Amino acid sequence: MTLTHATNSLQVEKLPLVSGVSLIEGKPAAGPSRDPMAFVSISPPSGDPIGVEFHAATLEDADAACRAAWRAFHTLANRAAEDRAAFLDRAATKIDALGDDLVAWACAETGLTPARIRAERDRTTYTLRMFAQVVREGAWVRAAIDLPEPNRKPTPRPDLRRMLRPLGPVAVFGAGNFPLAYSAAGGDTASALAAGCPVIVKGHPGHPGTGELVARAVCDAAAEIGLDPGIYSYLHAGGAREMEIGAAVVRHPCVRAVGFTGSFEGGLAIARIGAERPDPIPVFAEMGSTNPVFLLRHALQSQSDPIAEKLASSITGSNGQMCTCPGLIFALRDELTDAFLRRLATLLDHTPPQPMLNRRTLDTLLRRLGEVASVKGVELRAGQAGRAAALGGGTIASGPALYRTSLATFRAERRLHKECFGPVAIVVLCDTEQELVEGAALIQGSLTGSIFSGAMDATLAARVQSILEQRVGRIIHNGVPTGVEVCHAMTHGGPFPATNQPHTTAVGPLAIERWCRPVTYQNTPDQHLPVELRSDNPRRIERLVNGVPTREPA
Amino acid sequence: MTLTHATNSLQVEKLPLVSGVSLIEGKPAAGPSRDPMAFVSISPPSGDPIGVEFHAATLEDADAACRAAWRAFHTLANRAAEDRAAFLDRAATKIDALGDDLVAWACAETGLTPARIRAERDRTTYTLRMFAQVVREGAWVRAAIDLPEPNRKPTPRPDLRRMLRPLGPVAVFGAGNFPLAYSAAGGDTASALAAGCPVIVKGHPGHPGTGELVARAVCDAAAEIGLDPGIYSYLHAGGAREMEIGAAVVRHPCVRAVGFTGSFEGGLAIARIGAERPDPIPVFAEMGSTNPVFLLRHALQSQSDPIAEKLASSITGSNGQMCTCPGLIFALRDELTDAFLRRLATLLDHTPPQPMLNRRTLDTLLRRLGEVASVKGVELRAGQAGRAAALGGGTIASGPALYRTSLATFRAERRLHKECFGPVAIVVLCDTEQELVEGAALIQGSLTGSIFSGAMDATLAARVQSILEQRVGRIIHNGVPTGVEVCHAMTHGGPFPATNQPHTTAVGPLAIERWCRPVTYQNTPDQHLPVELRSDNPRRIERLVNGVPTREPA
Repeated sequence: MTLTHATNSLQVEKLPLVSGVSLIEGKPAAGPSRDPMAFVSISPPSGDPIGVEFHAATLEDADAACRAAWRAFHTLANRAAEDRAAFLDRAATKIDALGDDLVAWACAETGLTPARIRAERDRTTYTLRMFAQVVREGAWVRAAIDLPEPNRKPTPRPDLRRMLRPLGPVAVFGAGNFPLAYSAAGGDTASALAAGCPVIVKGHPGHPGTGELVARAVCDAAAEIGLDPGIYSYLHAGGAREMEIGAAVVRHPCVRAVGFTGSFEGGLAIARIGAERPDPIPVFAEMGSTNPVFLLRHALQSQSDPIAEKLASSITGSNGQMCTCPGLIFALRDELTDAFLRRLATLLDHTPPQPMLNRRTLDTLLRRLGEVASVKGVELRAGQAGRAAALGGGTIASGPALYRTSLATFRAERRLHKECFGPVAIVVLCDTEQELVEGAALIQGSLTGSIFSGAMDATLAARVQSILEQRVGRIIHNGVPTGVEVCHAMTHGGPFPATNQPHTTAVGPLAIERWCRPVTYQNTPDQHLPVELRSDNPRRIERLVNGVPTREPA
Repeated sequence: MTLTHATNSLQVEKLPLVSGVSLIEGKPAAGPSRDPMAFVSISPPSGDPIGVEFHAATLEDADAACRAAWRAFHTLANRAAEDRAAFLDRAATKIDALGDDLVAWACAETGLTPARIRAERDRTTYTLRMFAQVVREGAWVRAAIDLPEPNRKPTPRPDLRRMLRPLGPVAVFGAGNFPLAYSAAGGDTASALAAGCPVIVKGHPGHPGTGELVARAVCDAAAEIGLDPGIYSYLHAGGAREMEIGAAVVRHPCVRAVGFTGSFEGGLAIARIGAERPDPIPVFAEMGSTNPVFLLRHALQSQSDPIAEKLASSITGSNGQMCTCPGLIFALRDELTDAFLRRLATLLDHTPPQPMLNRRTLDTLLRRLGEVASVKGVELRAGQAGRAAALGGGTIASGPALYRTSLATFRAERRLHKECFGPVAIVVLCDTEQELVEGAALIQGSLTGSIFSGAMDATLAARVQSILEQRVGRIIHNGVPTGVEVCHAMTHGGPFPATNQPHTTAVGPLAIERWCRPVTYQNTPDQHLPVELRSDNPRRIERLVNGVPTREPA
């Protein structure tokens, strides 16, 4: 069996040059000439290092980046919203202009396909441009004005005006599985910058070259718009200093909020550091998700094969390394399900191993597969745990795996409730419809929950949905969970452990609200008010005046 | 010196009867006939117990209340929004109908004046009716619909619809200092019920009789509207079982969020219990606040006496036991400030001792006063720490105190940065305008910050404000922080330690959002959608359809 992966054709020696040092407010960090802590980026398909030495940021670099961000935060407050919008647009243009250089680096560093990387790049620049639009439009601040009533008895009513205000500098942790969309200039960075919060990125060690290219584009955009360069810094973080740099940034007094996408353990550790500060700050951590799928009888009756195909593709897309990969499948134990499972197993058995993002991700997957396989009552139905490890050489890859168990076993075994990050699903067979409903009640908090149903399944679908509404951020009917639209109505979030802040979304315009809090101005002279709250409403944004939405002056 | 307090005239034996047992889903808890854990309510002006024995809820009571709330949560989901609105309106009517019985109990149990209690009662019923209106109007769910694009390339865009959905049963901790507005049926209870979350109240031991009267009114309202009685339970909590009951409710799997108003230590303890659950739940804790006031030169030049009068009244109103009591006053060291201080000191010296809410509050105040007074460089300027203790008898009371110190001392002494809950303010004298600005940067997170300034102070006022925007939830110009309007533009919240959730407000319509999270429905058949998201928009609420606000069908 061989790796059928497009990145094999990319020649690492042809990658465009990166400096290997952090970017602190637009300038390369000094970096010791012979850094004993240097680290390398590994290309998963070959397992070989890419020939560039990266230098992890020093604690002094981190401090300088955070201080510059604090200064920039205050200069940014005096700039027009249009400047922020122009900056976001320009950053998108600059990233687009990186063209195939960026695709080559990202593919080499992550093993993801060029098609996937191009789609992710387009999503990233779309998000930057969307937030530029959100900033221009201006209503996102949720402005509300309650006019004074000087003659009210017993006491006059004061003039009260409220809007969302940015928290201050934000630290963003690059995600291993989204080298573009949740890293140097992804959703967290874009939404924080849109809110008026400078960003310090702690780069992911799995794709430092990709990160540096994007970071340079963002810094150049800031310079071209004439913004304070402290608005954005990128810290290389890898090797022995990786954890230290992340912790230093989260602890830094100038940092006021944190965005994290990654593992459950990593998210909890970062959240704990944020909570244990003398002045605790919010940490928005998106962690693990099992994305359960419920297959109802009449859906399988008419759509068994198409559903199996959709699910196989959803399980193995990006080799299962999506936060919305479907990891649990609940179905009734009957012949329909048997046939469905045969089809799904065949599809997965015919999916060749694909690269995993990095050694750590593969090791975690193999450990989780071992845990799942060791549960009495769990049976391997397709694929082969550890098969990829047998490929030999340094290849970092894995094929898919499909397990089958009963609801009784699932109920008893917490090991089956946790995410297996990779191309893996566990099918839970339920003896009755009541067991299927119980399955929904047993799952951990998750980003998504999917229900495949036919018209005749409506009653059961409603029961399952009413439980999923308590457990997930997004409910999908007759579709797979992968594919997260960037739009107003999206919720990319969910109850613990999917995230630690279930009232938020990491995707869509509302993601900007994470980096803000409401501030009320009482009896404040117009000259001291933010422009969005001034009586004449110079930006003509929609505001709530005495409870009524209007774009008119107050 | 004597207590000049209206509650002295209330005769405890004339108080209307309360049962002294908890109300579990509308019914009195069984309660052992001879409860060795019974507790009493103390009347602060006399220090004597009120002649009713209260029985703390048992752990079985707490469990029954939480389970009933979980059941009610699901039945409530099938009721029209109008039923919730009618329930809130009816509860307000029932509380109004308690008339002077309620005022008598609340005054007897808290030592607050009848005028204050009547105002607080009116605020409470206003809040209930406001949330009834919010629920009827319906736009609070923030509905957003992005319509499908089946022909989009490379993949079709699905149908996506999002709204806020209630979290589930909410535990509310009664506050000592607001026996009505933040207790059995106060802001947290009203906003949670409005969101569709049943409420379990853990009563405050300082005013159990008041709490029981209000709780009975709420239960009666639920019965009259025909709602599941599990929607509301009230747990008496005092004596040795107080902490145990609170912890049991916060740990209960059926409880999905917690509202707390009280001390810093209490809030942190509750938040920790919520965070350490296997499924962590949000705890919204409003804790301590110093509410700093900045006096700028030109304000004192023209308004010294009126400002002194406003501040004296704000410091001593409700005997300083308001979360927005001004506890820190920053001013320049000059003759204007000297004159202002003389006037403020005289006013405070002429304010007689008034009752404190309870022994615990008084003891905490005396300990904090001892801490403040022991700081080298702090001078007592008016009042006398511990003066009230000298009143003799069992009276629970305190007079005001005013301290003076320098910015240098304030900078060095963390003991001065924390709240003194009671009629106490510390004046911090600053040698320069720069020191005044530094003072703003030194304060802890606070609910409010006030700036008194004249037209000529505009530059300095802007500098102070730009720092307060990072530190407080509400900025007040030329006014005192006490007096929190219930309106759209209000933010009653702020950075840690004022609250642990600075993105929220505890007052005003937005308070409802604390008890919800967004849920997205993808490709969901109309019949499975909540009514607010259905295509025909039967409730004609304002929704964001493809990003545009509209009341039209989608």
